[in-house]
Amino acid sequence: MNLLLTNVHYTSLLAGDEGYAVSAPSTISIRDGVIDRICHQSEFNMSLEDFDTILDCQGKLITPGFIDSHTHLIFAGSRSQEFEQRLLGASYQSIILNGGGIHSTVQATRLASEEHLIELALPRLDSLIRSGCTTVEIKSGYGLSFEHEIKMLRAAKALESHRKINVHTTLLAAHTVPKEYQQRPDDYVDWICQDMIPYCAEHQLADSVDVFCESIGFNLKQSERVFQSAVKHGLSIKGHTEQLSNMGGSALAARYGALSVDHIEYLDLPGVEALSKANTVATLLPGAFYFLKETRKPPIELLRRHNVPMAIATDVNPGTSPFADLRLMMNMACTLFGLSPQEALRGVTNHAAQALGKQNVIGQVKEGNCADLAVWDMSHPSELSYQIGLNSLYCRVVNGRLDYV
Amino acid sequence: MNLLLTNVHYTSLLAGDEGYAVSAPSTISIRDGVIDRICHQSEFNMSLEDFDTILDCQGKLITPGFIDSHTHLIFAGSRSQEFEQRLLGASYQSIILNGGGIHSTVQATRLASEEHLIELALPRLDSLIRSGCTTVEIKSGYGLSFEHEIKMLRAAKALESHRKINVHTTLLAAHTVPKEYQQRPDDYVDWICQDMIPYCAEHQLADSVDVFCESIGFNLKQSERVFQSAVKHGLSIKGHTEQLSNMGGSALAARYGALSVDHIEYLDLPGVEALSKANTVATLLPGAFYFLKETRKPPIELLRRHNVPMAIATDVNPGTSPFADLRLMMNMACTLFGLSPQEALRGVTNHAAQALGKQNVIGQVKEGNCADLAVWDMSHPSELSYQIGLNSLYCRVVNGRLDYV
Ligand SMILES: [Zn+2]
Ligand SMILES: [Zn+2]
Repeated sequence: MNLLLTNVHYTSLLAGDEGYAVSAPSTISIRDGVIDRICHQSEFNMSLEDFDTILDCQGKLITPGFIDSHTHLIFAGSRSQEFEQRLLGASYQSIILNGGGIHSTVQATRLASEEHLIELALPRLDSLIRSGCTTVEIKSGYGLSFEHEIKMLRAAKALESHRKINVHTTLLAAHTVPKEYQQRPDDYVDWICQDMIPYCAEHQLADSVDVFCESIGFNLKQSERVFQSAVKHGLSIKGHTEQLSNMGGSALAARYGALSVDHIEYLDLPGVEALSKANTVATLLPGAFYFLKETRKPPIELLRRHNVPMAIATDVNPGTSPFADLRLMMNMACTLFGLSPQEALRGVTNHAAQALGKQNVIGQVKEGNCADLAVWDMSHPSELSYQIGLNSLYCRVVNGRLDYV
Repeated sequence: MNLLLTNVHYTSLLAGDEGYAVSAPSTISIRDGVIDRICHQSEFNMSLEDFDTILDCQGKLITPGFIDSHTHLIFAGSRSQEFEQRLLGASYQSIILNGGGIHSTVQATRLASEEHLIELALPRLDSLIRSGCTTVEIKSGYGLSFEHEIKMLRAAKALESHRKINVHTTLLAAHTVPKEYQQRPDDYVDWICQDMIPYCAEHQLADSVDVFCESIGFNLKQSERVFQSAVKHGLSIKGHTEQLSNMGGSALAARYGALSVDHIEYLDLPGVEALSKANTVATLLPGAFYFLKETRKPPIELLRRHNVPMAIATDVNPGTSPFADLRLMMNMACTLFGLSPQEALRGVTNHAAQALGKQNVIGQVKEGNCADLAVWDMSHPSELSYQIGLNSLYCRVVNGRLDYV
C-alpha cells in the first residue's frame, strides 16, 4: 500500500520555529505506513507507477495527525441533568445525595456491556476524528473492579476495529475509591498494585498507568505505591496532579519518570523544575478549567522558561469536560491560558506524542515517522486554533491509509 | 407536501416551565409548511394516506429549529494571523498599522464577488445548520459603500437557494466609519439615512437596521438618526450596544421600539427598565465575551427580575467571535454567564424569534406555527447546552420539509 500526496504545504513540527513554518509545494511519499520521502514538488523524481494511490492535495495544509493524549472516552450515562441542577443552584452535596457525581457514571458504566460502551463512545470518537485526531489515549476508571476495568480497556482498544484510529490505553483504577472500599482505601490500592496492574501488564491491556493524586483522590503515599507497581511491571506512568491543590504529585510522578502530569493548575516552581529534569510533559486540560470555572491557571511562563513541553488534551468526560473537540481545546489554551497557536499545535502533535512516549514515531511530518497525517482546507496553521465549528478537515492519513470523514 | 412525525418527544418552549418539559410520545402533523396538529401518540386518528412522508422518530427529542439571531456570516479574508500576533504580544495599534483589524475585513470583502462571498459563507452556514439552525440572521457591515453593502445583503439572502435555511437580513452600514469618510462621520451617517436605508427598504434587501453604538463606533446622536430613518422607512431596528461602555444606546434603541439590543455587558438598571418597558430582547453574545477576555458580564439577574427575554447568538465574525457553533454559545451562556439550560434553549428558540420580530411564527413547537424543527438523538433538552462536539442532530424540518445533514 503505497500512497503519494502531491502539491501539499506541510508544517513539520520539528523542533524550533522553523518547524511551524509552512513549506513550499511538496510531495510526501508513503510506503507501508511510513513516511518514506518528503521533497519539494520540483525535485520529485520517482515513478508514479510505484504508487497505489496518488492524491493531488491542491495546496492544502498538512499537519501531523492530532493526538488527544488524555481522554475518558469510555463511559455510560449522562450527567447533563447534574449540570442543570448545578446551574439552578444545587450544592455539590445535594447532587451527590441525589445519586449524581462520579459514582453515577461508575454505576452506569458497570451496568453497560462492552458492546454498548463501544456504541456510546463512537460518536465521541467521530467528533475527535473530525478534530483531526489519528491517535487517542483512553483511560479506564469508571469500572473500579476487575471485571469492569478490564471491560473498559477492552472497549477502548476495540475502537481500533471500528474506525481508522490508534488507541493508547491507560489503567486508571486509581480514579476514585469505589463504594465497596469506602472505609479502606489502602486495601483498594493494594488490590490495584497486586492484582490489577500485573494482570494488565501481562495481558497487554494497558500501555500506561494513571493516578488521581488529590485530596479527594489518592494521597502521595498511595500514589507512590501505584507508580512503583507500574514501573515494576514495565508500564509507563501518568498523573492527574495539582488540579485542585498543590500536593507535590507532579514532582512525585516525575521522580518515577512519568510521561506526563496532567491539569497542573497548582504546580509550583519546584514542581516545574522536577518536570524539566525528568523531561516529563505538562498536559493542559483547558476544558475542565473552563467547565469548572476555575480561576487559577497553570504556570505557563514557568513551564516555558524551564523548557517543559506542553501538551493539550480534551479530558473528555461526563463530569468535568464534556467536550469532544480537540480544536476547541486549542482555542481555549490560547484564549484562556495565553498559549500561541504554535504552542497549541505542538500541544496536540509532537508534545502530545511525547506524553504517550511516542515522540519518535508520531507527531511530526518527518521521513521515517509513522504516516499519520491530517489534511486541512486552510492556508495557515494559526487557523487551527482560531476558527471553531467549521469542518475544515479534508481527510486523514492513518497508518499510511487515506480516510475521509 | 404533508409530513407526519410519529413517536416524538418534544419540548414546546411555550411560556412557563411546562414549555421546557419533555412530552409523552406524540405525533406532529405538518401541512403546507405549517404545524397542523400535535397530539399524544395514542390519540392520533388521522389517515396515514394523507401524508406524503411519514418519519418514525423512535422517541427522539424535537425542539423548535434553532435561530441564530446575530451573525456576521458574510465576509472574506481571515484574521487568524492577527489572532496569532495578539497572542505573541503585538499591541492593537501595531496590528492596525500592519493592516489588521476590521478594515482588513472590509478590504477583503470589497474585493470579493457576490459568488465568492457565498462560497466562503457556506461552510460557516453548514456548521450552524449542524448546530440545529433553521433561521439565521445575517448582517452587512463590511462593505460600507452602496455597491458592497448591497452585495453582502444579496449574498446573505442567496444562501436560501443553496441550503434549506431561512435568512433574516440586517443592514449594518453603521458598523464602522469607512476610510473614505474618516474625517466626516456625520456625512457617512447622512448617506446611510438618506440613501442606503431608503434603497434597502424599497428593494426589500434588509429586514432590519442595526448600529454599532459605541465610543469606537457611532455616538448616541448618530445612532438616533439611523434609528429614525429605519423607523420612517418601515424597517425594524437592532443595536450593538453597551458592549465596551455604558453609553445609553440600549435605552435609546428601546425608545425606538428595537427588537433587540445585543452584547449589553455594561447595561445598567435604567437600561434594563427601558428594555422591559419596550419589550425589547437582550441578546447575549458569549463568544465575543470569551474571545475578547472580557470580565464584565451582562446583568443577568436584573434582566431576569425585569422579565426581559434573553436571546443567545454566535455573533460569528472574523475579529471577535470566530465561532460558528450555536450550541457552544449555549454552553458558554451557561458556564460563563450562569444561564440555566432552559434559558439557553429559549435563547436560541422563542426569545431568538422575538429578537427577529417572528415570535408568532417560529421558535415554538405549536399548532399554527411554521414547521421549523430540529430532531435530536438525545433524551433530555439539558444535553443541548452540555455536551459539545458530538453530531447529535438527527435531521431538521425547514418550512415543513425534511433535511438530513
Ligand atoms: Zn482526566
Ligand atoms: Zn455583532
